[in-house]
Amino acid sequence: MSQQAALDEAISDLVAANRILAAEGILDGFGHVSLRHPHDPACYLMSRSLAPALVTPQDIIVHDLDNRPTQPKDRDQKLYYERWIHGEVYKARPDVNAVVHSHSPTVVPFASTKAPLRPLLHNASFLGFGAPVFEIRDFVQSSDLMISTADLGKAMASTLGPRADVVLLRGHGNVVVGPTIQIAVFRAYYTEINARQQLQAMALGPNDVVYMDDGECETTDKIMQSVAGRPWELWKRKVMPK
Amino acid sequence: MSQQAALDEAISDLVAANRILAAEGILDGFGHVSLRHPHDPACYLMSRSLAPALVTPQDIIVHDLDNRPTQPKDRDQKLYYERWIHGEVYKARPDVNAVVHSHSPTVVPFASTKAPLRPLLHNASFLGFGAPVFEIRDFVQSSDLMISTADLGKAMASTLGPRADVVLLRGHGNVVVGPTIQIAVFRAYYTEINARQQLQAMALGPNDVVYMDDGECETTDKIMQSVAGRPWELWKRKVMPK
Amino acid sequence: MSQQAALDEAISDLVAANRILAAEGILDGFGHVSLRHPHDPACYLMSRSLAPALVTPQDIIVHDLDNRPTQPKDRDQKLYYERWIHGEVYKARPDVNAVVHSHSPTVVPFASTKAPLRPLLHNASFLGFGAPVFEIRDFVQSSDLMISTADLGKAMASTLGPRADVVLLRGHGNVVVGPTIQIAVFRAYYTEINARQQLQAMALGPNDVVYMDDGECETTDKIMQSVAGRPWELWKRKVMPK
Amino acid sequence: MSQQAALDEAISDLVAANRILAAEGILDGFGHVSLRHPHDPACYLMSRSLAPALVTPQDIIVHDLDNRPTQPKDRDQKLYYERWIHGEVYKARPDVNAVVHSHSPTVVPFASTKAPLRPLLHNASFLGFGAPVFEIRDFVQSSDLMISTADLGKAMASTLGPRADVVLLRGHGNVVVGPTIQIAVFRAYYTEINARQQLQAMALGPNDVVYMDDGECETTDKIMQSVAGRPWELWKRKVMPK
Repeated sequence: MSQQAALDEAISDLVAANRILAAEGILDGFGHVSLRHPHDPACYLMSRSLAPALVTPQDIIVHDLDNRPTQPKDRDQKLYYERWIHGEVYKARPDVNAVVHSHSPTVVPFASTKAPLRPLLHNASFLGFGAPVFEIRDFVQSSDLMISTADLGKAMASTLGPRADVVLLRGHGNVVVGPTIQIAVFRAYYTEINARQQLQAMALGPNDVVYMDDGECETTDKIMQSVAGRPWELWKRKVMPK
Repeated sequence: MSQQAALDEAISDLVAANRILAAEGILDGFGHVSLRHPHDPACYLMSRSLAPALVTPQDIIVHDLDNRPTQPKDRDQKLYYERWIHGEVYKARPDVNAVVHSHSPTVVPFASTKAPLRPLLHNASFLGFGAPVFEIRDFVQSSDLMISTADLGKAMASTLGPRADVVLLRGHGNVVVGPTIQIAVFRAYYTEINARQQLQAMALGPNDVVYMDDGECETTDKIMQSVAGRPWELWKRKVMPK
Repeated sequence: MSQQAALDEAISDLVAANRILAAEGILDGFGHVSLRHPHDPACYLMSRSLAPALVTPQDIIVHDLDNRPTQPKDRDQKLYYERWIHGEVYKARPDVNAVVHSHSPTVVPFASTKAPLRPLLHNASFLGFGAPVFEIRDFVQSSDLMISTADLGKAMASTLGPRADVVLLRGHGNVVVGPTIQIAVFRAYYTEINARQQLQAMALGPNDVVYMDDGECETTDKIMQSVAGRPWELWKRKVMPK
Repeated sequence: MSQQAALDEAISDLVAANRILAAEGILDGFGHVSLRHPHDPACYLMSRSLAPALVTPQDIIVHDLDNRPTQPKDRDQKLYYERWIHGEVYKARPDVNAVVHSHSPTVVPFASTKAPLRPLLHNASFLGFGAPVFEIRDFVQSSDLMISTADLGKAMASTLGPRADVVLLRGHGNVVVGPTIQIAVFRAYYTEINARQQLQAMALGPNDVVYMDDGECETTDKIMQSVAGRPWELWKRKVMPK
């Protein structure tokens, strides 16, 4: 595939990811998705500041890892206020090629209590590698809870650490990462589903919920990565014009 | 903008607000939305008595702050039974330019128990300025729970007070206010979302829910007011013919 | 209005009621709605046995109060298995002109525990007149839980009693009645909404839920009966071809 | 009916079953449905590996009971990874002619706690014949939780046993069986509905939930099998082109 064809496909996938996550209720009017540039790992692709459901290929901007557009931008092109999430994660995690930041509704309660989000459903086995909570109050007082500086981005990436695929943001939302955009979308979706099911399981029997163990998570995540394309095709068909 | 253009835009926004809140499940067959008149602060715009999803520009009536139409009305034009909510809030709160009264489903349980609705999610930081409960039984016995007189409107506005943006009505619903209609719609929506997430967080750990603190609410509400237009555009696109 | 016009309107309203309750999630593939005959109180109108969402005017059959069709029926026209619900309620309650039998989802848990369904939301003030549970096991052992005989219909109508508008059927569903079909549909809908909100309120504070008192229920139900037409028009517009 | 006509009808029903269960939220991008071959009980029909909502008649493959295609398959035709579920159930249970494997959302919490899934709602009376939990960890450590070998299929079929219609898979989903595809679809749907209602009933009163007794389950399941065609026709109309 030519570089241009690879870039076109990346942009098309990124647009689909935005619309899929909006259609499936993971993103509302806020949140954003990015993808590492297919032939320049020191850049990433992300929409200008826009509700994810409305993103088109024309809205995608190449950002460097300090979250600056690589091309001079139009005067009315606003960038996402929390783009620091993306740049700092790509710097800290070379294994990561896609990042989803959402306010996925049922994950917020886990971000705001001491109950850890844990892998209950096999599709969410990646939660076994950790789902730490980032408490912004440990870094800044009286903030707007948002990751709006390089320092907060670094602190958040450090809470995510070298191995976890999800970090919860207290009072705010979460960040999910993956080696491909299909896998990051799959994980953002199943983080929400697992949260709903864990909440119900904890109500049924707070002390006897059986979570996946470490060996199960290791094995299962590999399989899930290999099948993430199946729901992707289904979801894409619902949101993209033919 | 000419006065007529400003009025046309206000009416168009008010119609959109009605339909958006119905489409997003905040309003059902009941509830109403009003907007202070763009060039006469002693009047407000609101639909005749009608299910919010069905409101059109032709249904909008100018009311004075005693809730009387400023033009002679058609014989079959019924006014909302609880229009007193609007007039008394506009009288008491010069900072308020839009009022939403809804039976938003998950807020009702908070209106009917001692559990205070508190800011859990950054989008709902305005809850940090208070979300008091209006107990109509303190003012009238054996009532229909509705705000159907000037006295009840005044009592309710007094419970809302000078600073809060939300007041819960026991056994009934809530009233949300804002400086613009986009902000009032944003707040009505996120009051419901916060209620759902707080209910879940309290189930996960009744004693360890981390709410936003006062400083965070102050800072965050300013940001949220500045971005309320983003979901507005998204929601509007879903409900308004192009 | 001529008798034929009144009958046509009754049939049209009954078709709308079936489709509305299916569209709003109160009825699924099962359940049924009936309407007392507009000019013969000893008869009622109800569909042949069919999923409510699929009912058309051609499916409506006149039944007498012993639940027999008043006209010879086509060979393939099956009647509802639980039509006894309708005949026995119309016999026992001359004030009732419409009956809804549904498996409304959130009402079932109240039918299967000792927690009484009580009026929390003003729209559901009619619950203040009682929402008793019919335990079929008190009358027949090892049954299919259905009201499939005249005796069970009579027993159920006796549990409903002279004043309540709702009776819950253990392990099965509920029956809601009203003086008009618009009011019966309104009540079936708000029985479900109240059940959801009561479940949430009991989770927030099991011992401090404030329910409507008797005086409030008396006053409010009158108002609600007078406004039941507003959501009806909205719901009807969604399900009926223009 | 000719053998070809019977096969065509079976394929058409199987396609409808896939789409119905996806539309009703029982299947997401994963899960599968099979049907015993109408004139060869040693074979079954099932789609190639595909999201259930996308299955068409051209995707249906005849499998023998060792889960091998009976015709040479195209190079790009992948089979479902967990097809062992189907072959082993058909071997162990001659009374079963249809099998649904889903990750039906509210059933997973019951699969991951000690709370048994029990018949609360008459439509789910088949749960009275048992809903055991298959704990894969008793057979293999550090697995991907999936039924991907003949041995695991046999172990799971053995947990299902000779009489139950449902087996829950810990951390994963469930398998529902029936004598016809309409009945298996009905049961998969009402397993989910019963799980939701049982969760709510247990919250209302953990110690006083009234479940159906054995006699009620025996009687009711017979009736439910006889009426499973009614929701089937309704659901089918929503998903199949006319």
